Amino acid sequence: MAVAGAEQSSDTLGGFDRLCGLRMLSCTDTEVRAEAAVRDELKQPYGLLHGGVYASLAESMASIATGLAVRANGEIALGLSNSTSFLRPITAGVVHGLATRVHRGRSTWVWDVTFTDDADRTCAVTRMTIAVRGAPEGFPHAGS
Amino acid sequence: MAVAGAEQSSDTLGGFDRLCGLRMLSCTDTEVRAEAAVRDELKQPYGLLHGGVYASLAESMASIATGLAVRANGEIALGLSNSTSFLRPITAGVVHGLATRVHRGRSTWVWDVTFTDDADRTCAVTRMTIAVRGAPEGFPHAGS
Amino acid sequence: MAVAGAEQSSDTLGGFDRLCGLRMLSCTDTEVRAEAAVRDELKQPYGLLHGGVYASLAESMASIATGLAVRANGEIALGLSNSTSFLRPITAGVVHGLATRVHRGRSTWVWDVTFTDDADRTCAVTRMTIAVRGAPEGFPHAGS
Amino acid sequence: MAVAGAEQSSDTLGGFDRLCGLRMLSCTDTEVRAEAAVRDELKQPYGLLHGGVYASLAESMASIATGLAVRANGEIALGLSNSTSFLRPITAGVVHGLATRVHRGRSTWVWDVTFTDDADRTCAVTRMTIAVRGAPEGFPHAGS
Repeated sequence: MAVAGAEQSSDTLGGFDRLCGLRMLSCTDTEVRAEAAVRDELKQPYGLLHGGVYASLAESMASIATGLAVRANGEIALGLSNSTSFLRPITAGVVHGLATRVHRGRSTWVWDVTFTDDADRTCAVTRMTIAVRGAPEGFPHAGS
Repeated sequence: MAVAGAEQSSDTLGGFDRLCGLRMLSCTDTEVRAEAAVRDELKQPYGLLHGGVYASLAESMASIATGLAVRANGEIALGLSNSTSFLRPITAGVVHGLATRVHRGRSTWVWDVTFTDDADRTCAVTRMTIAVRGAPEGFPHAGS
Repeated sequence: MAVAGAEQSSDTLGGFDRLCGLRMLSCTDTEVRAEAAVRDELKQPYGLLHGGVYASLAESMASIATGLAVRANGEIALGLSNSTSFLRPITAGVVHGLATRVHRGRSTWVWDVTFTDDADRTCAVTRMTIAVRGAPEGFPHAGS
Repeated sequence: MAVAGAEQSSDTLGGFDRLCGLRMLSCTDTEVRAEAAVRDELKQPYGLLHGGVYASLAESMASIATGLAVRANGEIALGLSNSTSFLRPITAGVVHGLATRVHRGRSTWVWDVTFTDDADRTCAVTRMTIAVRGAPEGFPHAGS
């Protein structure tokens, strides 16, 4: 299922996604591509891309894709767990994320996210578990 | 071991720590207390504190404490894995983090971080594994 | 809540729990104590207690305690994720497990399990997330 | 690198691997295939394959493959963390494991293991981090 307006949604990303510089490139209910420019504000004291940035990008990629897919059913997507392993540091350029859906259950979706640098080396991997729940009364639609 | 200058180091935090609003309150090699104000820029689209923020704060707390402890040995601390579980959303106030060291090995340290809201309810927990490695030639000192 | 018959249930443990030699010592809906004797059949090729044994004991401790607590509501407990970190090897004696509940939600419970050796050194830690679901029609009661 | 004697090594597996019924089908330093028959002794109280079995199989697959690859350098492989997510229960037949190496570092290797049932449905996934360390004086060779 292709999610309409993936590119447009990048323009309208706010909050922490904007702070992290998340750019959504494509987004379906089985695969998401996104990236962020590595700038000084995203680094830790040694000058490397901060580990929390990978975790944050993965969280958003999986949550947004799941949320867009389930909102037609009146459901919302919430991160349940985020497990990120750091393999190789990035100090400059762009961090590229590819999220692939591993599982679509009634109440949980699982995604694997791989992060690469500009030389296409794997730098971090995240396993995201997303909870799918009925939207509370009066809850704003996911992404709206 | 008490780490001198923990409060001062909060003033000098830069990069992603500053972006997240991390405030270090105390820091030893067995326990770290820190907090961050919940502002709109740290939220995800539903208006909740973004999951990546918890992961980022935990990453910094454990990395900074380990890095300060091992730099006297000419070693550096690097995040190896960050596993965060989300238990209860926060929408306002302050998120409070308490990191407790679980293990101190030669090459890996493990920390448990618990995040609470202003009503002292547990909202997220992180297990951080930190790699301790010899500092590369010419590497800046941790925290410097 | 104290769960009646925790000791008796150890006598009646079957399947993989019996294979692993799990002995339940106490079991409430907030804390579980259990142990297993370290025998050659539980070791990996280097002569250490196999990492899968810690994961298996933690899985059972958290699942059994959650299952006993929710079955009065017609619900069952199923492992959702098991994240185990290995800190120090055990080669002989008894492995002692202590599970503490971190979170009790409507649909997920989270437990932290700490494993120690006979010298009370922490050897492994597990974070278990348990899904609580309505029991399917005709489903046997948890633990029966 | 193909590891000689993968099939033969299945005959000689002992300890917990034998208890779990692990059968190694192929083993290189980038991919491992293995399986185990689902028997009552491997089940939990609801009659499902015990979650600890997936964790145990993954632990062995990744550890054995890494250990065989690094022993020529006088190094050993030890599980550092095992993070398993359970997606779909198995009650009968054979559980099939496929481990793929995600990262080969100097001191840590990371593997992703996917478990499927006889209908080729993904039932569990494990992320294994393996520590590679110098073998202690007098340490038996991995796998010997």
